[in-house]
Amino acid sequence: MCGIFGIYGHKDSARLTHLGLYALQHRGQESAGIVVSDGKTVRSQKGMGLVTDVFGQEAFEKLPGHISVGHVRYSTTGSSLLKNAQPFLVQPSYGSLAIAHNGNLVNARQLRNELESSGSIFQSTMDSEIIVHLLARSKKKSLEERIVDSLPRVSGAYSLILLTKNELIAIRDPHGFRPLCLGEIDGAYIIASESCALDLIQAKYLREIEPGEIVIINENGLRSIKPFPERRHSFCIFELIYFARPDSSIFGGNVHLTRKAQGAQLAKEYPAEADAVMPIPDSGNSAALGFAEESGIPFEMGVVRNHYVGRTFIQPSPYIRDLGVKIKLNPIKEVIKGKRIIIVEDSIVRGTTSLVRMKTLRQAGAREVHMRVSCPPLKHPCFCGIDFPTREELIASSRTVDEIAKFLGLDSLGYLSLEGLFKAMPLPSGKFCAACFNGDYPVCPPKEAGKHTLESSKTNLSTCGIFQFVKIKHKVSA
Amino acid sequence: MCGIFGIYGHKDSARLTHLGLYALQHRGQESAGIVVSDGKTVRSQKGMGLVTDVFGQEAFEKLPGHISVGHVRYSTTGSSLLKNAQPFLVQPSYGSLAIAHNGNLVNARQLRNELESSGSIFQSTMDSEIIVHLLARSKKKSLEERIVDSLPRVSGAYSLILLTKNELIAIRDPHGFRPLCLGEIDGAYIIASESCALDLIQAKYLREIEPGEIVIINENGLRSIKPFPERRHSFCIFELIYFARPDSSIFGGNVHLTRKAQGAQLAKEYPAEADAVMPIPDSGNSAALGFAEESGIPFEMGVVRNHYVGRTFIQPSPYIRDLGVKIKLNPIKEVIKGKRIIIVEDSIVRGTTSLVRMKTLRQAGAREVHMRVSCPPLKHPCFCGIDFPTREELIASSRTVDEIAKFLGLDSLGYLSLEGLFKAMPLPSGKFCAACFNGDYPVCPPKEAGKHTLESSKTNLSTCGIFQFVKIKHKVSA
Amino acid sequence: MCGIFGIYGHKDSARLTHLGLYALQHRGQESAGIVVSDGKTVRSQKGMGLVTDVFGQEAFEKLPGHISVGHVRYSTTGSSLLKNAQPFLVQPSYGSLAIAHNGNLVNARQLRNELESSGSIFQSTMDSEIIVHLLARSKKKSLEERIVDSLPRVSGAYSLILLTKNELIAIRDPHGFRPLCLGEIDGAYIIASESCALDLIQAKYLREIEPGEIVIINENGLRSIKPFPERRHSFCIFELIYFARPDSSIFGGNVHLTRKAQGAQLAKEYPAEADAVMPIPDSGNSAALGFAEESGIPFEMGVVRNHYVGRTFIQPSPYIRDLGVKIKLNPIKEVIKGKRIIIVEDSIVRGTTSLVRMKTLRQAGAREVHMRVSCPPLKHPCFCGIDFPTREELIASSRTVDEIAKFLGLDSLGYLSLEGLFKAMPLPSGKFCAACFNGDYPVCPPKEAGKHTLESSKTNLSTCGIFQFVKIKHKVSA
Amino acid sequence: MCGIFGIYGHKDSARLTHLGLYALQHRGQESAGIVVSDGKTVRSQKGMGLVTDVFGQEAFEKLPGHISVGHVRYSTTGSSLLKNAQPFLVQPSYGSLAIAHNGNLVNARQLRNELESSGSIFQSTMDSEIIVHLLARSKKKSLEERIVDSLPRVSGAYSLILLTKNELIAIRDPHGFRPLCLGEIDGAYIIASESCALDLIQAKYLREIEPGEIVIINENGLRSIKPFPERRHSFCIFELIYFARPDSSIFGGNVHLTRKAQGAQLAKEYPAEADAVMPIPDSGNSAALGFAEESGIPFEMGVVRNHYVGRTFIQPSPYIRDLGVKIKLNPIKEVIKGKRIIIVEDSIVRGTTSLVRMKTLRQAGAREVHMRVSCPPLKHPCFCGIDFPTREELIASSRTVDEIAKFLGLDSLGYLSLEGLFKAMPLPSGKFCAACFNGDYPVCPPKEAGKHTLESSKTNLSTCGIFQFVKIKHKVSA
Repeated sequence: MCGIFGIYGHKDSARLTHLGLYALQHRGQESAGIVVSDGKTVRSQKGMGLVTDVFGQEAFEKLPGHISVGHVRYSTTGSSLLKNAQPFLVQPSYGSLAIAHNGNLVNARQLRNELESSGSIFQSTMDSEIIVHLLARSKKKSLEERIVDSLPRVSGAYSLILLTKNELIAIRDPHGFRPLCLGEIDGAYIIASESCALDLIQAKYLREIEPGEIVIINENGLRSIKPFPERRHSFCIFELIYFARPDSSIFGGNVHLTRKAQGAQLAKEYPAEADAVMPIPDSGNSAALGFAEESGIPFEMGVVRNHYVGRTFIQPSPYIRDLGVKIKLNPIKEVIKGKRIIIVEDSIVRGTTSLVRMKTLRQAGAREVHMRVSCPPLKHPCFCGIDFPTREELIASSRTVDEIAKFLGLDSLGYLSLEGLFKAMPLPSGKFCAACFNGDYPVCPPKEAGKHTLESSKTNLSTCGIFQFVKIKHKVSA
Repeated sequence: MCGIFGIYGHKDSARLTHLGLYALQHRGQESAGIVVSDGKTVRSQKGMGLVTDVFGQEAFEKLPGHISVGHVRYSTTGSSLLKNAQPFLVQPSYGSLAIAHNGNLVNARQLRNELESSGSIFQSTMDSEIIVHLLARSKKKSLEERIVDSLPRVSGAYSLILLTKNELIAIRDPHGFRPLCLGEIDGAYIIASESCALDLIQAKYLREIEPGEIVIINENGLRSIKPFPERRHSFCIFELIYFARPDSSIFGGNVHLTRKAQGAQLAKEYPAEADAVMPIPDSGNSAALGFAEESGIPFEMGVVRNHYVGRTFIQPSPYIRDLGVKIKLNPIKEVIKGKRIIIVEDSIVRGTTSLVRMKTLRQAGAREVHMRVSCPPLKHPCFCGIDFPTREELIASSRTVDEIAKFLGLDSLGYLSLEGLFKAMPLPSGKFCAACFNGDYPVCPPKEAGKHTLESSKTNLSTCGIFQFVKIKHKVSA
Repeated sequence: MCGIFGIYGHKDSARLTHLGLYALQHRGQESAGIVVSDGKTVRSQKGMGLVTDVFGQEAFEKLPGHISVGHVRYSTTGSSLLKNAQPFLVQPSYGSLAIAHNGNLVNARQLRNELESSGSIFQSTMDSEIIVHLLARSKKKSLEERIVDSLPRVSGAYSLILLTKNELIAIRDPHGFRPLCLGEIDGAYIIASESCALDLIQAKYLREIEPGEIVIINENGLRSIKPFPERRHSFCIFELIYFARPDSSIFGGNVHLTRKAQGAQLAKEYPAEADAVMPIPDSGNSAALGFAEESGIPFEMGVVRNHYVGRTFIQPSPYIRDLGVKIKLNPIKEVIKGKRIIIVEDSIVRGTTSLVRMKTLRQAGAREVHMRVSCPPLKHPCFCGIDFPTREELIASSRTVDEIAKFLGLDSLGYLSLEGLFKAMPLPSGKFCAACFNGDYPVCPPKEAGKHTLESSKTNLSTCGIFQFVKIKHKVSA
Repeated sequence: MCGIFGIYGHKDSARLTHLGLYALQHRGQESAGIVVSDGKTVRSQKGMGLVTDVFGQEAFEKLPGHISVGHVRYSTTGSSLLKNAQPFLVQPSYGSLAIAHNGNLVNARQLRNELESSGSIFQSTMDSEIIVHLLARSKKKSLEERIVDSLPRVSGAYSLILLTKNELIAIRDPHGFRPLCLGEIDGAYIIASESCALDLIQAKYLREIEPGEIVIINENGLRSIKPFPERRHSFCIFELIYFARPDSSIFGGNVHLTRKAQGAQLAKEYPAEADAVMPIPDSGNSAALGFAEESGIPFEMGVVRNHYVGRTFIQPSPYIRDLGVKIKLNPIKEVIKGKRIIIVEDSIVRGTTSLVRMKTLRQAGAREVHMRVSCPPLKHPCFCGIDFPTREELIASSRTVDEIAKFLGLDSLGYLSLEGLFKAMPLPSGKFCAACFNGDYPVCPPKEAGKHTLESSKTNLSTCGIFQFVKIKHKVSA
């Protein structure tokens, strides 16, 4: 997963981009980068780590200009290299071009093979670079024409910001998998993955970039075109469930309120008798509040978060991930001892993290532990940007709810139903991709020969890597 | 303020110390250091920044040994230098000595003058170094005897851990200003500022180190002496109100439950009609929960915290402090708009941060804002370790509650009474230092000639600096 | 100018390459790099600065493998960037490829334009990258075939070493501008710019790589092909005059002895009465010795070199270049005062450095200063790798010898004649390119439209940059 | 060995100090440091490595001021730590004090013991720090008085520069072991180890600082006092033989001319029939020239030096020292093959380096190799600053000249006689310490109990370390 931010027309553009990335840090902590143009020269600074690691105070003296694009990145192990940090800046014949990409292309392998066999040389292992080569190969003149000419060839999820010497271009794929919004500050336009980035810099939220829309911002102002055929909208429902920040508004609704509604719905579907409702901080906070309000059971904060660590889910190293379970959260014995606890989680992926947490609650003396999960069981991998593990590793793909409850040592376990989930959403169910729950993929991986199948290969699922799909259509429709 | 951690008898002592410091990171983010002994060689690593900045994975290969002491430090601007990072390691004639200090000596300037005029050369500007020179000047033989000989000369707050080639010694001053506790893991003894550091490494909590106690741990096991005359106990009440982590137990009680009790008491003293009770995350969480439970008004989380920043209060740079107000917290408009909000704060220091927050709530559309503060007005500076500003800068020292309410643009403002505060504490009121509220200082600054007065000088208040006091006795007794 | 070194078949290949580069450090001090293959993985390390700056002891643990190629680089200001450091490593479709290049392509701009307009994206501004793209665009299968297919399109100077996962390939252009030799150690083959690199690692010198020769080294041993049409040999005479190390043997002779012969010839052509013959250390040492021996005038070392600085000529920053004149050399007053001095220089480029030196000698009290230069006046820029300035900046292009003598404040000045120079060479005059003296360019810059001319543009002359030539044929033949 | 440089009264003092250290780099390559005062604040920058490694262009913006002192340091393995880098800056009660020291104290251990047992805490293992503590312990008021009060207690070699907020003080010990001179530029006074540092910055040489002289420079100008009793002058003869730069003038004469005179004397004492006289570059250059002139045998430069390495003798790591023999010098086969060579060395210490060199010459095909050494056999260690090995390791302490010749595989070997050496010196023999040749130590190590003897202990000989001496008086007089 990644976060992107761009601004056109502000003299302090790099600094604002820095702050914007800061607000989007939850979308990727592996690398950060900013590219800026002053109309003549395009400059870049990138590095591994958090935004605050990569940019010091002095960074911005070296990044003058009124147009800027930034990126924070998370990726799977192996491709965690500086050369894969974005924005990706190249010097094609038609001028400097920087690209920042959130999403995942599903026909990446096939396109890369084609391009390489006719002499293109890739600098990274990112699928985003494919777009750059397609643009360079296009016979069209302007960048806008090249985009219209090239993008129909790529399939999958792409929210993109492109920067040239004197232009900023935002693109959202026709399905609209990833969020992207438009804002304004002091007469300058802003593009950002989530609205929380606008809030931080006190910019005004204007609207979402629409699926299939291309927004071109330059000295003539903002222009919007929609040159691609319409597709079924497929907004990633997991953004609302887990990924986005609670203070953001995406896909038509506020994230916190959506999650509270999920929690309330969950309380209706799976009530329990208990002394306290507790969230797993912080991702379960909103749903737990909703559950507590609906059920009337007191809300408690019996687990304390160490504020000096990031989110477990998106740390690339398995070592840190395991250690993280213990480092991140500490239960308060005095609160939990002898109590019947309802613990609200946003989702269960592998189940290993939950297992450690439930053990810790038992050690702290909880009398009963009832877990409620504010989404349905995760059964299918994602090809469009969420870094889920393979199907085998998803605990719900091979175990029933009862088996999971037993595995986690719970007194009871309840998952929100898919219908209940849709009910809590701010838009009708037809607008969302819920493939991770129901296996209904809006973009089909191409029918290609190959060894890996959708179900078996971890490498299929790399956010920014390259993968191959094999005769899997009948499987996903199963 | 600072956090200290020591361990004796574990082969992975440096790594455990690292984790312990991680849990104590909230007590100081300016520098971090670990000193370790393998019985022969004493090694040190220190650096500016967070624990994770200073120590990488490879650090621990260079820090072998079974005895270890660590320190995280916060200090005022100006002395934020590597040479002031602790543990402070020296090579006196009787062998290597490392010292980690949490607290503040009130007769530091006078002692340093004496020592320097007879030829001692100081390496830092820390008051902690005075103890080192006193120990070196003592005519006694063993370190233990030197401690008993020297420490009666220093006045103020000191929770100390000393490490030598083959010993770990913990000392808590006779007033017991700062917390210090004893734990155990795999047969190894641990000393830590707060119990949350024991939890993180899954060590067993044994007891608090008592005021005036010296604990000596070496190959013969643990031995405790209490060689100093008894003094009135003066546990820092602000540790329970704000500083300590909610999952720690200090001064006889759990911090979270103590704060919930403060919040409940506050609801009794200053009720209000409202649609929601909201904490300023995260320091107000516990008190807000207590308030909501007592009042029956729904608890909400309408302000979202950016998890990639530290605590505002203890960031040394004023630039970051001001920016921090905006960067840290984002209100959710959809939650706040048109509502009557009770906002619960743990304390108000200068009032400037609260002012920005209240404005932000108004901008988000709150109909009414009622602030409740879970401690009395802060009117007096602290000389024993809390980095409050001077008296002039404390908003409550010169303004009435009504004036503060007006300054902050509140519909109503209520502070917890001192009696109410004591009622919520886990120990009787006589055990605490509440000088910041009532001006009743347990340790009097010496009657010295000089230009600065208790009320006027910022430099008086440096946690680890050097200060002078002037004829102030009649003032503090006023 | 650059130095290149490659080795096939030694388990400590990176370390030997490091030592080889060390010996070739005089050929480029701006950046250094090593690429190594263990048959499976190709690894790279590059950096700005001297070889010892870029590689520490620990570097070699990260560079395992039996095939290795290294590069030291000097370039003109502006392109002094890490992305231009070599070896240049890319991942074309046919596998990893690293390239190390010494020389300069004269049709670089034209080829790059062609490649970019059909969609190739360049990563650097080096002309060497053109070769990489030509190889990637070739429709042939094997790398060897691609080389034979592509290289006829490039014109200019190129001594190349290519490394793939399991092969090392050395190529010298058909004119043979730059030196390249073959050696052997412990059964492993070595390719190096100069023989001094073989000496350092105590390898055996086998022979020079011939002009137009391609040497392929892999698990089947060494194979040589000469697929290109023969061209007039054009060995760079300036390598023997100035660039190569005195202990190297290139172009059929030892460098030191060649320079001594130049000095002796100079003594015959331009004798002088004097008390001492002194070199400008260290580049004039050999010629001064030859002059002293031939003339019978005592050799003296009245100017002392600071051993902690590099060679003035090839430092890219003008600031350091000017400061360097003073920093590098200090005359010994006690030796020079009142004496008639013959000072022997290897060459005069701009004359500015010599001017400062002559002033310094006068300040030290020299009674007479006679300068003798061991080559003819430099009048024409070089397009094949030597970083001379533009024609205007070459002092001898616009001034007579008398005018130069006056400018430098000399009592007399004598340049070696072109005939005398050829007489001192180890090969017949027809084997050499002496275009910098006589303007007779073996490779004609293409007739292209453009603004810059051979005479006016500094940018024409970048070693590794991109340049344009304009209707200059009649000029160079003038 | 170390080099020191100070300047008072120049607005660009740090930059000039930097250049001065550059010129003195041959005196120490392990660490470098500059301390500067602007009259109010004293600032310091130090680091490990060469001057150019430690100071970048931006360094000098952080080092404003008109008073500056700098230091380059070489020391034995073990104490090669940043904390031992000089200038050593402390904050005693009477104000900031920086000290730069060239030399070695012989009663260091005893003084340190005394100071530590009465409570002084040392920050380094340098003997120089002892002086700082003695100054701090003095009951006198001014720094000048403290110096006069304290320095009589230390015995050994010390050329010192002290910097305070507003003063620069130079001190040379009464024996005058190490050189120290006074210069002037633009009205600012300069103190430097050697005159070559004055030349580099084009300053005027005024005179040597006299043995026992204290020079105080402040806003009132320069004042000189000589408060100590006179001692026998003992200028280190090895400075002239090897250590100092040939373009310096020290101890009354130019170094290059002194070495030429040694070489000429050597030619008289030990003539040989040969085809060429060759120096070991660069330390043997001057003596070889003198030998060639006197003997009439042609001077050749058949061994080429790699200009990108330092001097072998003073590299601290044994690994680099051994590798260095090969890396540094490459013989030119074409020059040496079949020839009878006289090779002139400045000195032979262990003989291991010479052994490798002689083998290399034989491998290059030399028919005969005659070595001439321009000083007598080195038989005794130095306690006053030259880092010779222990007596056992000095090859001449246990082998006759014939045995050494055989060990090195020479056709003949001749050492200059002590009388011949004195004859070549610029001052009468009574002015020099030649203890390394004749064992006649001007400063007797104190009669102390202990295990180590002058002859057996490497640790006795640390330049800046701590050592013990044992009843050795009768031994050195033997």
